[in-house]
Amino acid sequence: MRTLLLKKDEVRRLVSKTDVIGAVEEAYKAYSSGQVEQPPYLGIHLPSRRGEIDFKLGYYSVNEIISMKAHSGGFKNNPAEHGVPNSMGTILLFDARSCALICIMDGSLITGIRTGAAGAVSVKALARKNAKTIASIGTGNQARMQIRAINEIMKIEKIHAWDSTPETGCKYKADIERELGIPVIVASSKKEAVEQADILVTTTRGTGSLVEADWVKPGTHIVAIGTDQRGKQELDPELFRNAKIIVDSFSQCTEKGETWHPLNKNIIAKDDIHGEIGEVLLGSKPGRESDDEITIFDSTGMAIQDNTTASKIYQNAIANNVGTFFQFFEE
Amino acid sequence: MRTLLLKKDEVRRLVSKTDVIGAVEEAYKAYSSGQVEQPPYLGIHLPSRRGEIDFKLGYYSVNEIISMKAHSGGFKNNPAEHGVPNSMGTILLFDARSCALICIMDGSLITGIRTGAAGAVSVKALARKNAKTIASIGTGNQARMQIRAINEIMKIEKIHAWDSTPETGCKYKADIERELGIPVIVASSKKEAVEQADILVTTTRGTGSLVEADWVKPGTHIVAIGTDQRGKQELDPELFRNAKIIVDSFSQCTEKGETWHPLNKNIIAKDDIHGEIGEVLLGSKPGRESDDEITIFDSTGMAIQDNTTASKIYQNAIANNVGTFFQFFEE
Repeated sequence: MRTLLLKKDEVRRLVSKTDVIGAVEEAYKAYSSGQVEQPPYLGIHLPSRRGEIDFKLGYYSVNEIISMKAHSGGFKNNPAEHGVPNSMGTILLFDARSCALICIMDGSLITGIRTGAAGAVSVKALARKNAKTIASIGTGNQARMQIRAINEIMKIEKIHAWDSTPETGCKYKADIERELGIPVIVASSKKEAVEQADILVTTTRGTGSLVEADWVKPGTHIVAIGTDQRGKQELDPELFRNAKIIVDSFSQCTEKGETWHPLNKNIIAKDDIHGEIGEVLLGSKPGRESDDEITIFDSTGMAIQDNTTASKIYQNAIANNVGTFFQFFEE
Repeated sequence: MRTLLLKKDEVRRLVSKTDVIGAVEEAYKAYSSGQVEQPPYLGIHLPSRRGEIDFKLGYYSVNEIISMKAHSGGFKNNPAEHGVPNSMGTILLFDARSCALICIMDGSLITGIRTGAAGAVSVKALARKNAKTIASIGTGNQARMQIRAINEIMKIEKIHAWDSTPETGCKYKADIERELGIPVIVASSKKEAVEQADILVTTTRGTGSLVEADWVKPGTHIVAIGTDQRGKQELDPELFRNAKIIVDSFSQCTEKGETWHPLNKNIIAKDDIHGEIGEVLLGSKPGRESDDEITIFDSTGMAIQDNTTASKIYQNAIANNVGTFFQFFEE
């Protein structure tokens, strides 16, 4: 049995933004069609002052691939103390017909890229067609990923960016302007940034409301990325009262996404959630219905996104003879 | 960052039965000392007529290793249709201080070997010192593993073996007599085998009571291996009424081990469970206290057994320069 090994650099070469946007769309549609089995993910509680590691498992009955992603992050002392990055990942792909291990790839890049693509998929499906201006609350790695992916599917005229650390905002401005040629205005307040937005992207891993409801103008599409577990929060729960709420996974978002907060405060009921993005992509639920609607996309992240993304990378590797085959056994 | 890759043949060469018995003892003691984090394992429901795959995750705070084992089994058509074995496994080891992936080893052999060692550990701790005769209900691969491991820690005079398929029993007799030189009597009934036993080993994956309570003579030690999920059963629940019940994991055995059946029938209460084998090994609970006691060891299998066993194999590989290093990335 041969297993394909793919290094981080090979993954980087094999991944295209367009492919990943397609893979994430496929993931959402598959999930909302019941073609996916995705058990709750497993985490390990490590001693404090270290980071986190979690394991996400997904089976997609159409491509017949089982994926297992281990992803760690937040190990700030890794570069200095252990000579490795603060965030790493590994993805195993199994052929679900035999459970043979067909691929082991470095998964460090995939979480960031498929999460960026998630925002772009929601913009395609839910933002106003004449949207031009983005507000970015948070300017870290994932904020860049969002812009890179959204830039693939629309023309971004300018970005108003805010970060709790102004220096990080300045670095983001320099990077995005150099890389993508999109003008970035570093905002002096969140309000200033949010008020300009056609599309608002939040990527802060914040733990309290950062965006007040009355700053958000009618017609805004909100991409809420930062909240994927209890304790995290980015949006004023009042924002949900009159918005069209679209989630990646109904079960995850109501349990630990941004959507949990307004539910918990009885600002909305579960019935007020418009649907899953997969349903919108499949056409079984409408997307945006007017230019005045505020749409909120709550993204908690799903194993099936890793599955379809990694499967595409694996296919690209096979097609282009990239990678190293290793035989764990002879039979 | 370098990751050590270990093939199935290398694992076979690196694993010693004594090491594994030691590793499983360490695992049990660690588990019962609260040094282990072990989330519930994850399974995937594949279409019927295929086998099963599950993922077991364990963190051991003493060796600072996180292990993740993927193990599949029961894919009967694999050799003919896919050219791979019906059971396969893969183990990842992460250094828990940085979450760097330090080793990927073939894990096909480890589940069988560490489960065999589990039986031997329980025999050491709980069987009568003058035990000589084993009854083996079930004569498949795991029945052999049990005998190989028990043979490391005591002198087995003879084995009475029973299988629902007599031909399988005959094959077992031939194999064990050739490999270990222990005489095997193929019993014509389960009762006949069980009545002779000082130690009774059940490895059938049965789904109903196979061993009646009044067949078991006083002083017998029972190694109950086959039941690790709801729906499986091997022993008459009445056997538990007056036996000393020792479990690998209190939470697992009361939920899905052999012990669940007498609990479910109110033959015993949870308080009637004597303790975990780790507690016996640590000396915080007594083991066998008389030659007349019937002792039952209920083994459901734990991630920490994979963790300590695979860690030992990894150490042996490093010490003996076995394996292939692979760099998933350069930093």
